[in-house]
Amino acid sequence: MTRGLIVGRFQPYHIGHHEAVKRILKETDELIIVVGSSDNSHSIQNPFTAGERIEMISRALKAEKLFEKCFIVTVADVNENTVWTSKIKSYCPKFETVYTNNPLVKQLFEGVGVKVKKMVSQRSEIDGVKIREKMLNGENWKELVPAPTAKYLDEINSLARIKAITEKEEKE
Amino acid sequence: MTRGLIVGRFQPYHIGHHEAVKRILKETDELIIVVGSSDNSHSIQNPFTAGERIEMISRALKAEKLFEKCFIVTVADVNENTVWTSKIKSYCPKFETVYTNNPLVKQLFEGVGVKVKKMVSQRSEIDGVKIREKMLNGENWKELVPAPTAKYLDEINSLARIKAITEKEEKE
Amino acid sequence: MTRGLIVGRFQPYHIGHHEAVKRILKETDELIIVVGSSDNSHSIQNPFTAGERIEMISRALKAEKLFEKCFIVTVADVNENTVWTSKIKSYCPKFETVYTNNPLVKQLFEGVGVKVKKMVSQRSEIDGVKIREKMLNGENWKELVPAPTAKYLDEINSLARIKAITEKEEKE
Amino acid sequence: MTRGLIVGRFQPYHIGHHEAVKRILKETDELIIVVGSSDNSHSIQNPFTAGERIEMISRALKAEKLFEKCFIVTVADVNENTVWTSKIKSYCPKFETVYTNNPLVKQLFEGVGVKVKKMVSQRSEIDGVKIREKMLNGENWKELVPAPTAKYLDEINSLARIKAITEKEEKE
Amino acid sequence: MTRGLIVGRFQPYHIGHHEAVKRILKETDELIIVVGSSDNSHSIQNPFTAGERIEMISRALKAEKLFEKCFIVTVADVNENTVWTSKIKSYCPKFETVYTNNPLVKQLFEGVGVKVKKMVSQRSEIDGVKIREKMLNGENWKELVPAPTAKYLDEINSLARIKAITEKEEKE
Amino acid sequence: MTRGLIVGRFQPYHIGHHEAVKRILKETDELIIVVGSSDNSHSIQNPFTAGERIEMISRALKAEKLFEKCFIVTVADVNENTVWTSKIKSYCPKFETVYTNNPLVKQLFEGVGVKVKKMVSQRSEIDGVKIREKMLNGENWKELVPAPTAKYLDEINSLARIKAITEKEEKE
Repeated sequence: MTRGLIVGRFQPYHIGHHEAVKRILKETDELIIVVGSSDNSHSIQNPFTAGERIEMISRALKAEKLFEKCFIVTVADVNENTVWTSKIKSYCPKFETVYTNNPLVKQLFEGVGVKVKKMVSQRSEIDGVKIREKMLNGENWKELVPAPTAKYLDEINSLARIKAITEKEEKE
Repeated sequence: MTRGLIVGRFQPYHIGHHEAVKRILKETDELIIVVGSSDNSHSIQNPFTAGERIEMISRALKAEKLFEKCFIVTVADVNENTVWTSKIKSYCPKFETVYTNNPLVKQLFEGVGVKVKKMVSQRSEIDGVKIREKMLNGENWKELVPAPTAKYLDEINSLARIKAITEKEEKE
Repeated sequence: MTRGLIVGRFQPYHIGHHEAVKRILKETDELIIVVGSSDNSHSIQNPFTAGERIEMISRALKAEKLFEKCFIVTVADVNENTVWTSKIKSYCPKFETVYTNNPLVKQLFEGVGVKVKKMVSQRSEIDGVKIREKMLNGENWKELVPAPTAKYLDEINSLARIKAITEKEEKE
Repeated sequence: MTRGLIVGRFQPYHIGHHEAVKRILKETDELIIVVGSSDNSHSIQNPFTAGERIEMISRALKAEKLFEKCFIVTVADVNENTVWTSKIKSYCPKFETVYTNNPLVKQLFEGVGVKVKKMVSQRSEIDGVKIREKMLNGENWKELVPAPTAKYLDEINSLARIKAITEKEEKE
Repeated sequence: MTRGLIVGRFQPYHIGHHEAVKRILKETDELIIVVGSSDNSHSIQNPFTAGERIEMISRALKAEKLFEKCFIVTVADVNENTVWTSKIKSYCPKFETVYTNNPLVKQLFEGVGVKVKKMVSQRSEIDGVKIREKMLNGENWKELVPAPTAKYLDEINSLARIKAITEKEEKE
Repeated sequence: MTRGLIVGRFQPYHIGHHEAVKRILKETDELIIVVGSSDNSHSIQNPFTAGERIEMISRALKAEKLFEKCFIVTVADVNENTVWTSKIKSYCPKFETVYTNNPLVKQLFEGVGVKVKKMVSQRSEIDGVKIREKMLNGENWKELVPAPTAKYLDEINSLARIKAITEKEEKE
């Protein structure tokens, strides 16, 4: 049995993430999804709590019967990046391969003997910043996240929260 | 859909925990299993890392097709117990009911408006301390944990670790 | 008896704060003044220590016989905003109403069942940034803070400190 | 104007503390009461939150018109005792004299040039441990705390909390 | 015997630092070199770990037989600057004089009774930012650091790291 | 060139430590001495600050011309032992071999691929606890620490400190 690992902040979980997850699950049996910056929420960079991010990822995975192949693990920020890899190893079930496009993440994991593969994605133009901007501007953002995630983001009234956070941080 | 929550340190996950999980899943649709003291490991009280505890719980759940009804969420210790409940709320998907026999946990969650139910268990005599002692004394401990968990504890050579930790702490 | 609560960083305490305090004390018996970011000082955003901020608020309150109606409570920063409200509840005597113009603070407290009222102020154009700039530019800032606070800021030689901090941070 | 400072955990605030406060206020104009271990609550050593301790001290002070002569300041624990004195200096309004019977506190403050005086008390036999034991044993504890504090401890149902904490910690 | 102290982040240690060290060692017997922000690494501001910075400083000192006159001490960041000076005192062997050009560091140490002297440097135009930029731009940076430090920076493949960090942070 | 590493708390540095250091320096070129629990002081377990421990080790090393072969590095406590090894790697110059008699330290470093050797000592009966007890009991402790360390412990008046700490902790 083989296990891969990806790291993200998932603010929110979008179709770029979702497609990468599905693609990786074609070449590995199980996948660990590390929810980074788990101790940060209600800020512009990190509007959603760790629990909300677990929920939005789980719903999208369950809709495609992928939930039982995944582990969703929260890891808080650590300033020191070399310590961060050992923290991830300590918080996650064992894994062999990290999938990432981030050159620093690649260096750090290779530095502690973990195999790193490129995370091929056809949607690299999508990111959390863009989605949050579309929400604020009243543009169509729902097509950029999996349908169950979009529904959940409505349920928790995410638009009002993002507006309140933005207004607050602009004042400071 | 309803969701319950239990909290434990699961050092290790044993049949008392496992029976409680199965019992609760008869009256609630989904269950959040909070792995507490997640930032502590390789000590007498907490020999296993958060990742190892996720693995030992998952294997036992998967063996009985319960994994997809559960969320396993790690939460680090917080000194201030009133802050701890809000930390759990922030790290977990939404839940309605906490199952516990611990009077303080009951007070704390009721204090923030969460429903609390008694966790009926027929194996209240089992706990992590007893299992770790049996391991050290060469007694039969495997019957006290689910079979997949016992197998995993052998795989990670847990007996050698517990011996090393005990020897170290006795010296200090 | 009723109790309100306001949150600020008070860098420094100015007449906008002071008028709000006096206005709120007309409709509530007692007021908790939370000094936020209490663990930060000697930086551009937070030049004064928690102790200095307690002192500058107390002197202004005592000058108008309001000190005995107030609690001045320091609360350190917490990254996670949902945990922050429970931290405030834990550090403060009981209160019923939070007064704020900040939409995020409003959402967070309403989310945990606390009543929130708008903080009417006729001096919303005054803030800490503006006062610190006036100090650096040699402009008249003293009329923007209560007289006892201005006197205290001279006593602790605050101008020299703000200049030193500014010079340091510009270099980095 | 002169200012003294005392440090305690006040779990709970009792007549030994209260007499010391009154005695010190005869020789100094104002007194800073530092509530230590402010980030700890709902444990056997520290059952009450910082906010509850502020409330129980304030009520006792107000009953004797002493509130306006005092500052109640919360300070969290710091492992390193030499750093702890500078933390107290940073969180408190300026003071000249520390009153303590604790030889280590004496050494630490004298080490940073603060004057230290002995805290004469006629009630040195009273302490928090004893009061909490009396509560658990159903003995008369109310005469050991100021009357307004006793009333407050009933209001917040402190006996039930101390029982729940004790039961929990005995199990662990 | 007299002892001085300097504080820096040394990202990397350069000839401006090195000349200052040599100059100070002409008027004091021993020198403490405090490596600040020791808990930060692999970021644009702080690419090197504390251990790597100890190594690059040591090699330069040993090449000039200065190592035995120096103590290299790591100190992690503290938000509160008044607490920071006491942390430095606690982590370092005793010292009498701080050498600095930073007006805030001067104020802070003088505030706790430490003598502060100006750190005369003929190379004030050199700083870590400039060196890291030259590395990224393929310009000649090696003449700006002591020769043994340059050699060490090659050994640990520092250019690849700085590129990876820069690429990562630009994306975020 | 080869480098070894030892870890200790050195409360205080004694002849058991000193002999081990000298013995190791016969088979390795340089030695890193990690001062653990560096963020703890003025407690019974850890009476001395990190800075004082650096001083007492340095004086003993300098007396035997060993200082330039050693690096003295402070590392704060980390709860999670698997993270602790990566913290040590990050704070220290590169090393190949850890010398220890502690079975847990052995497991942890071997788990991350570091070679571990037994630390042969002819003085295993000496430890910090015993020395601190002798100090309190007025027994001869000076022969158990290197002479320059004994002299330094007198200079900083360590006996008075240990007495004050003991008296304080007994009261709590």
